[in-house]
Amino acid sequence: MAYELYYWPEIQGRGEFVRLALEEAGADYVDVARLPARQGGGTAAMMQLMEPDASGRFSFAPPFLKDGDVLIGQTANILLYLGGRLGLAPRDEAGRLWTHQLQLTIADLVVEAHDTHHPISVNLFYDDQKKEAKKRAKEFIDSRIPKFLDYFEQVHAANPRRSGFMVGAKLTYVDLSMFQIIEGLRYAFPRAMQRLEPEYPRLVELHDHARERPNIAAYLASARRLPFSEEGIFRHYPELEH
Amino acid sequence: MAYELYYWPEIQGRGEFVRLALEEAGADYVDVARLPARQGGGTAAMMQLMEPDASGRFSFAPPFLKDGDVLIGQTANILLYLGGRLGLAPRDEAGRLWTHQLQLTIADLVVEAHDTHHPISVNLFYDDQKKEAKKRAKEFIDSRIPKFLDYFEQVHAANPRRSGFMVGAKLTYVDLSMFQIIEGLRYAFPRAMQRLEPEYPRLVELHDHARERPNIAAYLASARRLPFSEEGIFRHYPELEH
Repeated sequence: MAYELYYWPEIQGRGEFVRLALEEAGADYVDVARLPARQGGGTAAMMQLMEPDASGRFSFAPPFLKDGDVLIGQTANILLYLGGRLGLAPRDEAGRLWTHQLQLTIADLVVEAHDTHHPISVNLFYDDQKKEAKKRAKEFIDSRIPKFLDYFEQVHAANPRRSGFMVGAKLTYVDLSMFQIIEGLRYAFPRAMQRLEPEYPRLVELHDHARERPNIAAYLASARRLPFSEEGIFRHYPELEH
Repeated sequence: MAYELYYWPEIQGRGEFVRLALEEAGADYVDVARLPARQGGGTAAMMQLMEPDASGRFSFAPPFLKDGDVLIGQTANILLYLGGRLGLAPRDEAGRLWTHQLQLTIADLVVEAHDTHHPISVNLFYDDQKKEAKKRAKEFIDSRIPKFLDYFEQVHAANPRRSGFMVGAKLTYVDLSMFQIIEGLRYAFPRAMQRLEPEYPRLVELHDHARERPNIAAYLASARRLPFSEEGIFRHYPELEH
């Protein structure tokens, strides 16, 4: 049975980290909210699963994944579940937890990337918090991007397998997520990233490698890959780069 | 061999979610950074484990847990690891993931609670972002606390076991974390919580029950329980309540 992914149909957002893993693995999946309502899709189908049912299990927010009877929310948790099944995570417990730990640190970075344009409230428009956004984006560019990317570059360099991947000898979902982080940061902060990237040769090489994997390349060239936009997590507002 | 917990020695912070689980289970553990340096403790011992070693595994930030050769970072990931071992999580995979999902949603709330006093940058003093903090705290109180607590109250109510716990028939680490969330929100925003709490009878009852469990009561009465303070995640700045 196909995996059912539920996420906002018009943005990459957090759903993209799951899409990339499903696409790399060539998994059979349906991006439900992107289907027409007459095929059981649309945002309404998604919202319905955000209400408690007999199982008592429902998510605070998308994305979530349905696999038969199992419904799993929180991006990193979905990848934890899929990692073993799709061959995108180590098999041993310590390796699985280490991979998950890196994904949770990526999730922390994603929150901070989001908050550059929404530092006060998700309920206000960007224009109503632009002044604060400029301050927060400056801190993000000057201090937080380097802190996170320094860490991930060090993790890559310290991988005892020297495989060119973040964890162990083979590609994991964390490598795909790092690809997406580099893509997103380049979209949102192109000038800053041009300046910063020479410090992170391993991450840039990992990004380039991921982009060229056959299934990822095919996905990126397809209509399934949504474009970045000013509705998503990574937004390009030129005034936020100094 | 005792678990070794590494966290900032002067605050509850994120480490507290792990401490509560270890204490409830009566686990043998050492809070390493709180030991004197001559006993191998102190912050220096913690910082040393934040550098890559031969394993290549190290954390972006505290807390992290050492269990023999295994080093695990990210609060929710530590609890995922400990949950089964301490008898504080369901045994089946779907139950473990559901418990973890709730913990990750608690982690999201914790980030937002932190950002009420640091909406612009962790590198600036609160006083240098107080104006923005007032705006963010207003949104947090009016919109975000209710959104998160509505969700957790619903989860509690929808638990098919009707056990009085968040998940399944027995206490899990998520119940202890909910206790800490209620404690922290009461400390930071006492007037707001007084107003809001009648909407969340199940969570308040869960909090009261957790506080009275023998091991938790003994812990809270001990010197091991650090006080809340304006160095932690939950901070009481009266001007942030409107």
